[in-house]
Amino acid sequence: LPFFELANSEMDRFVTEGQGDDLPLAPLRHCSWSDLRRDFSPCVDRWSCGSFSWTIHSPYYRLPDPALPGVDGVLSKMLLPAVFGVLRLDNRDEARARRVFIGYQPGPQGDHLRENWELRQEGISALSNGAGYGMACDHPGCWTAQHFDPRVLLAEQDRERFHFGNGSVGLISCMVPAGACVELRVVLGFYRAGVVTSGRSAVYAYTRHHAGLADVWRAGFVHFEDHLRAAAAADAALVSPSLSADQRFHLAQSVRAYAGSTQLLQEGERALWVVNEGEYRMINTLDLLVDHAFWELRIHPWTLRQALDLYLTEYAYVDRVRLPGEALAYPGGLTFCHDMGVGNAFSRPGHSCYEIGGLKGCFSYMSAEQVLNWFAVALLYVEKSGDAGWRDRNMAVFFRCFESCLQRDHPLPELRDGVVDADSERVEGGAEITTYDSLDASLGQARRSAYLCVKSWAVCSCFARMLEKAGDPDAAFRAREQAKLSVRSLLAWVQFDGSIPALLQDGCSSRIISVVEGLAIAWHGGVQDELQEKDGIHASLLASLRGHLDAVMCHGLCLFPDGAWKLSSSSVNSWLSKVYLCQFVCRAILGWQGGGLGDGQADAAHAAWLKDSKNAFWAWGDQFYSGVLRGSKYYPRGVTSILWLDEAEKAV
Amino acid sequence: LPFFELANSEMDRFVTEGQGDDLPLAPLRHCSWSDLRRDFSPCVDRWSCGSFSWTIHSPYYRLPDPALPGVDGVLSKMLLPAVFGVLRLDNRDEARARRVFIGYQPGPQGDHLRENWELRQEGISALSNGAGYGMACDHPGCWTAQHFDPRVLLAEQDRERFHFGNGSVGLISCMVPAGACVELRVVLGFYRAGVVTSGRSAVYAYTRHHAGLADVWRAGFVHFEDHLRAAAAADAALVSPSLSADQRFHLAQSVRAYAGSTQLLQEGERALWVVNEGEYRMINTLDLLVDHAFWELRIHPWTLRQALDLYLTEYAYVDRVRLPGEALAYPGGLTFCHDMGVGNAFSRPGHSCYEIGGLKGCFSYMSAEQVLNWFAVALLYVEKSGDAGWRDRNMAVFFRCFESCLQRDHPLPELRDGVVDADSERVEGGAEITTYDSLDASLGQARRSAYLCVKSWAVCSCFARMLEKAGDPDAAFRAREQAKLSVRSLLAWVQFDGSIPALLQDGCSSRIISVVEGLAIAWHGGVQDELQEKDGIHASLLASLRGHLDAVMCHGLCLFPDGAWKLSSSSVNSWLSKVYLCQFVCRAILGWQGGGLGDGQADAAHAAWLKDSKNAFWAWGDQFYSGVLRGSKYYPRGVTSILWLDEAEKAV
Repeated sequence: LPFFELANSEMDRFVTEGQGDDLPLAPLRHCSWSDLRRDFSPCVDRWSCGSFSWTIHSPYYRLPDPALPGVDGVLSKMLLPAVFGVLRLDNRDEARARRVFIGYQPGPQGDHLRENWELRQEGISALSNGAGYGMACDHPGCWTAQHFDPRVLLAEQDRERFHFGNGSVGLISCMVPAGACVELRVVLGFYRAGVVTSGRSAVYAYTRHHAGLADVWRAGFVHFEDHLRAAAAADAALVSPSLSADQRFHLAQSVRAYAGSTQLLQEGERALWVVNEGEYRMINTLDLLVDHAFWELRIHPWTLRQALDLYLTEYAYVDRVRLPGEALAYPGGLTFCHDMGVGNAFSRPGHSCYEIGGLKGCFSYMSAEQVLNWFAVALLYVEKSGDAGWRDRNMAVFFRCFESCLQRDHPLPELRDGVVDADSERVEGGAEITTYDSLDASLGQARRSAYLCVKSWAVCSCFARMLEKAGDPDAAFRAREQAKLSVRSLLAWVQFDGSIPALLQDGCSSRIISVVEGLAIAWHGGVQDELQEKDGIHASLLASLRGHLDAVMCHGLCLFPDGAWKLSSSSVNSWLSKVYLCQFVCRAILGWQGGGLGDGQADAAHAAWLKDSKNAFWAWGDQFYSGVLRGSKYYPRGVTSILWLDEAEKAV
Repeated sequence: LPFFELANSEMDRFVTEGQGDDLPLAPLRHCSWSDLRRDFSPCVDRWSCGSFSWTIHSPYYRLPDPALPGVDGVLSKMLLPAVFGVLRLDNRDEARARRVFIGYQPGPQGDHLRENWELRQEGISALSNGAGYGMACDHPGCWTAQHFDPRVLLAEQDRERFHFGNGSVGLISCMVPAGACVELRVVLGFYRAGVVTSGRSAVYAYTRHHAGLADVWRAGFVHFEDHLRAAAAADAALVSPSLSADQRFHLAQSVRAYAGSTQLLQEGERALWVVNEGEYRMINTLDLLVDHAFWELRIHPWTLRQALDLYLTEYAYVDRVRLPGEALAYPGGLTFCHDMGVGNAFSRPGHSCYEIGGLKGCFSYMSAEQVLNWFAVALLYVEKSGDAGWRDRNMAVFFRCFESCLQRDHPLPELRDGVVDADSERVEGGAEITTYDSLDASLGQARRSAYLCVKSWAVCSCFARMLEKAGDPDAAFRAREQAKLSVRSLLAWVQFDGSIPALLQDGCSSRIISVVEGLAIAWHGGVQDELQEKDGIHASLLASLRGHLDAVMCHGLCLFPDGAWKLSSSSVNSWLSKVYLCQFVCRAILGWQGGGLGDGQADAAHAAWLKDSKNAFWAWGDQFYSGVLRGSKYYPRGVTSILWLDEAEKAV
């Protein structure tokens, strides 16, 4: 398969030209890309070329809450740091034996490659570099070999000739006789022992269940078929036939990007779920959590509860707020940090690694958005999990969040309009931003943001509904009134063409798709029925957003020339995760099928971005600048695509 | 100091051009190289520029054998994974306050940089990336700060402004008032927990004494002045006034290269000393051990005993031998592997990571040389340590080594001539090589090697002396006779010009300096007195070697045009470690002062190689090709320079 390059031989570091022995080299070619077929889903990745195939199975498990009693056995099986490969060569139509092999060359730093002699007596052929990474195969016909150059190993028939420990490349090989078909089971294992974080002292949770790489391999072979079945079952739950091929590609890539960003750690007796922010590696970033919450609600909602609790105990703060240009500080309220740290380093309590004062752009505070985000995730979690105990324990916190939102709208009640107007004092003369930190003010500015206005409407609507169910009509009324203010303000800013400005203030010519995002929170946060009523209390909002979309979803505003979605008319920086989310809102909530939704043109354009040779190396990434991936590589946020399954299920 | 470059700002990964805030940048220049003064010794490295200096103290301890009772307390202090920096700014002549700072930026992979808030309450300002590496300062006036760009931190007066966890650069800063002189104590600590080897399961021994990086810093500050005194004391023992400035430079660099290649590990209850082979990282390579043995004999001889024992129990083998071109195999005998593994990966017992069959050049077997090497180290250890118990336990092994040497000379006793003629069957049709694996046959070929012939003479002479002392005159006689055979053969090959061919066979025009190497083993292995006798039993050998040197130490043969030593007349690849060793032999044993020894020209030429801008990056390395360092970077073998202290002491 064309997944390797022949490196410069390490031999050169040892030998002067002309002094080494010349060993026979087998020709080493790979099949052409055009002869290669790929079958790709969230948990199975198969590459086939004629009679040969290589399949990697990486089951995504619905992890149970490790705090529950009696889950240790199932966790031990699920928490295996490995993926499962099957190398297949069908030689039934061949008159000659052929060799099948797999191998690798670790980087020049770190521990050296090693054939694992100890496992031979167990019938396992294994290669690893140190205690951290390696591959193993349990086929009895396999053997391992090691040299500087794989072509030397392939030229040699004698299995025992090259156990050359200095070699930088290792191969696991097997001869497949004429007329036979062989499948090799390969466990690719990973292991990191000891404390892996600073600021908190946590180890990988799997270290509780497996002692080291050899144990991981052994457990992998014992349960190999179970893991393959689990991968197929997870795929079956994710690959809905109602999704188009492009949609399935988006979903598969984004699930993998999310999975690759996660860690289940263990801190003393407590499990600790970490979602790293892709290439930026910030920990459990709150403005991402509100988006990948839709995935976690479906697959393992306890991780949301854990993040909410940790934000509340460690990464919350109470601030004061200021109106622009005013020196007077008003009470603000409870809000939350942007993140919990970065790159396995936890921040000091009360502070993110991201936010600093004195700025107006990237790295400024997101105080107004983060209280909305925490509140939204809390409401989503309560609604979907039915965890009434957690809801009741945190009811006072919800009220503090609500009051904090009101103060950020305006410190003076009579001047509130459901739109953020105040900045946290933490900005120290700067200005608050939103999650759209690398965009222009259309989406990047918190104050007067239409995007935050709809998010605020959603949170207040869901909170009101929760209070109504809880039998507190007075409080619910206040929340409904605040939600109404947001709608009223939004409607007041509808322009003659039906569009709504990105910022609800004079002089804003930008238009954004993201104004509709908040509807997804409302839909899953408890008011889905209200949104479905034909002339319900939200009808005017929904109608105005439909009108907005009709006005802005055109070339020159919120569509790129290739039909891809442009989140802001005034920026070429568009984020796929948010596009996926808005696509769901448009189709499932607004019943709006423009912008290339109905005919699949939008999905095709976005898939073409991901597959473009400029971008494909990073598999999935979020921030595309006119179709070029330039930031947020390996990002977890794309699992907003899971919302598309809600549409499929709603249709059923 | 000019030890940094401004990296591209990590900011670019987050922000589109024009979207970020522009922060004030302080100008950041470093002093010029010409204003910089360096004072450099084995354990102290000071850089001064006017009123500023930065000194790194790295004491080299005479580690006691960890197996001895009662050494835990002293080991706990010595085994601190840290070096000790002093940052000094003398502001006594200044009318303004100035800021002194130190900091770093970790690489983009691995754990993120972090300010260690937990240690603030202990008065320690610290930066680390994860649990593995970091610097700390205990001056009460210090503070830490973090950002993408150090110039942002230096422009800011407010200590609390930039605790920006996302930042890739951290600084520890201190304001030095006008008229004050401040010295900051900086502990640069390192830590790696858990099993670090494969094939054997070993941890770093220091993990037994210190729980993590914070503990390392704390212990470093508690004993800071003790470590500085220890560094000065170690220097005093190594920096003899009888050495020239160039010799002191060579010694300091080579001690540091050795120290940097070592690890003290812990395997269960047993300590495990590892000397890695510089950039190649092979473990306890036996043909290096015989050279850096001279260092270990003086500083911590128990590490030699440990390596000898481990070779004997795990990395020995018994082979058969063949004469060139013959199919018949004769008994060979006990010999030893080239090494114990590579890059923290131990080889399977009985095999090195280096040797493979079927070769004639690099990576072939060194069976004949390695039995000589093990035997030589054993004799050196017994002679210098006086460890009679170990000697007695291993006497049978010594005889097996001796018999193995005889068989490799020639399997038929009547045809023995003190020169290696047989190859191990392990070469499988190839040919044995020597430690000079990257040179041509003049030094690279084992069969008929004059270099091995003198080594064999030395080992047999020392063994005979040991047997004489042990009261076994018959066995001693046999060893003396074998030594005489070597001398006889060598003398028989002396040419008309007094030179001796590199290979004691027809048609060899190469001439080598290394033929004298074995004398150092004899000198330290028990027969120094015999070598000093004017007309002693070795006088003819010494005289012929002096004549050889007179003949070959000239331009065109064994001198480079710049006066540097060329180990072989037929190769431009010359090794400093071996040059140092031969220099000792020439001066101290042969009383020979040619080749630029007497006037220091040779040392100056070799120092010029090390300081050349093409080579200086690697501090010390062994293999120079016409003065260009091309292999064996960061090599431990250069501590053969310790032999120069023997000359100084002999002179006293």
